[in-house]
Amino acid sequence: MKLVIGDKNYSSWSMRPWLVLTHFGVPFEEVRIPLAEDQTQASILAHSPSGRVPCLITNDDITVWDSLAICETLAERYPQHAMWPRDAAARGRARSVSAEMHSGFGDLRSNMWMNIRASFPGKGATPGALADIARIDAIWSECLETYGGPFLFGEFTIADAMYAPVVMRFNTWQPKLSEAAAGYARRVTEQPAVKAWISDALREGHDIAKYDICA
Amino acid sequence: MKLVIGDKNYSSWSMRPWLVLTHFGVPFEEVRIPLAEDQTQASILAHSPSGRVPCLITNDDITVWDSLAICETLAERYPQHAMWPRDAAARGRARSVSAEMHSGFGDLRSNMWMNIRASFPGKGATPGALADIARIDAIWSECLETYGGPFLFGEFTIADAMYAPVVMRFNTWQPKLSEAAAGYARRVTEQPAVKAWISDALREGHDIAKYDICA
Ligand SMILES: N[C@@H](CCC(=O)N[C@@H](CS)C(=O)NCC(=O)O)C(=O)O
Ligand SMILES: N[C@@H](CCC(=O)N[C@@H](CS)C(=O)NCC(=O)O)C(=O)O
Repeated sequence: MKLVIGDKNYSSWSMRPWLVLTHFGVPFEEVRIPLAEDQTQASILAHSPSGRVPCLITNDDITVWDSLAICETLAERYPQHAMWPRDAAARGRARSVSAEMHSGFGDLRSNMWMNIRASFPGKGATPGALADIARIDAIWSECLETYGGPFLFGEFTIADAMYAPVVMRFNTWQPKLSEAAAGYARRVTEQPAVKAWISDALREGHDIAKYDICA
Repeated sequence: MKLVIGDKNYSSWSMRPWLVLTHFGVPFEEVRIPLAEDQTQASILAHSPSGRVPCLITNDDITVWDSLAICETLAERYPQHAMWPRDAAARGRARSVSAEMHSGFGDLRSNMWMNIRASFPGKGATPGALADIARIDAIWSECLETYGGPFLFGEFTIADAMYAPVVMRFNTWQPKLSEAAAGYARRVTEQPAVKAWISDALREGHDIAKYDICA
């Protein structure tokens, strides 16, 4: 199995399925394509029909692009792992908050992009970004209260992987969070698969200038 | 089972799971909330924690919001229906194109909103919207060629439901499409569940002024 990803420092969508595969110990080959280079599009298109990463290519040669489609495909193919919560009500909610992340929070995404190596405290805090952060804080706090933590639905699931890049943004931009949400962000940052991704990002050494400055 | 939706004329996200339930003959109660009124948010929040429609509430009281999360939940709960394609490779691709729709095509969505009763031919054709339309045309054409039609993966699946509101937009704004894509759009428009939704939208009689004009 092969997972095509972008730079670990910048590619928030790539991080999600990589964490799921890594956390659940599913063996895979990682193909990393540096983003924002002249040949980036051609390199991605050689694997992914959408011209976007991440893209999964299974051993039986099934191609799945898009982070959420990949996660659903993995959950289906590895029923021995609780990638989604086992309980149906929790799973319904995990799918809901994951899909809400997947199609939403555009203001947060454009004003506080992922750049793990950078620190931009206090910047990017537009009204739209703050509204997104408030909604994310509410989602996390309610899940932690309902399911008791340490992760959104107890043990680490796809829902946590979907929000892990948001945690990376919060580490960089440091918006004010509730105590419950701040604690969750710390636990995600310390989660072994997340730590491995961060440590790769720190050592990566491919800079994209436009993401490294914040006015 | 209860599906909470917005106006059939305008609520593109609501249309998707409604079509899936209707096409596959799953009985459900429809709760329609007129959008863009003073009490809209309060009415939606009484059902849906995200403050957005659609929202599904199952008989065993599981709440799932977001169109794609609802579709995945339905596919899981009704394995007797081929809501996703039965073939794993086709299913991987159906999930990919559905997720690409769910998180993408922002330019199309903001410049050519859904308004089934309206006709705005030639308008809204910004470069971004045209790029989205070109990508959608390519997705449809490739799927129709690979799987032989009449729908994206042969018979009608969740992937067609995800793109049905795009077809409604194309009927209103009439961008230029390839022959294959135009034929597909006509078949979706004539599909019985889609026809039923359109006919309800035409008779609905709740206008949202800001969506009824296009400069
Ligand atoms: N909805 C997609 C979004 C994927 C996406 O936008 N990926 C970016 C990188 S994070 C990309 O591949 N951009 C193409 C490029 O930079 O050339 C997903 O969830 O996977
Ligand atoms: N990603 C969500 C988007 C849902 C959405 O944005 N719904 C709109 C109507 S189509 C809504 O409920 N808006 C709230 C309002 O108008 O008050 C989904 O796929 O269901």
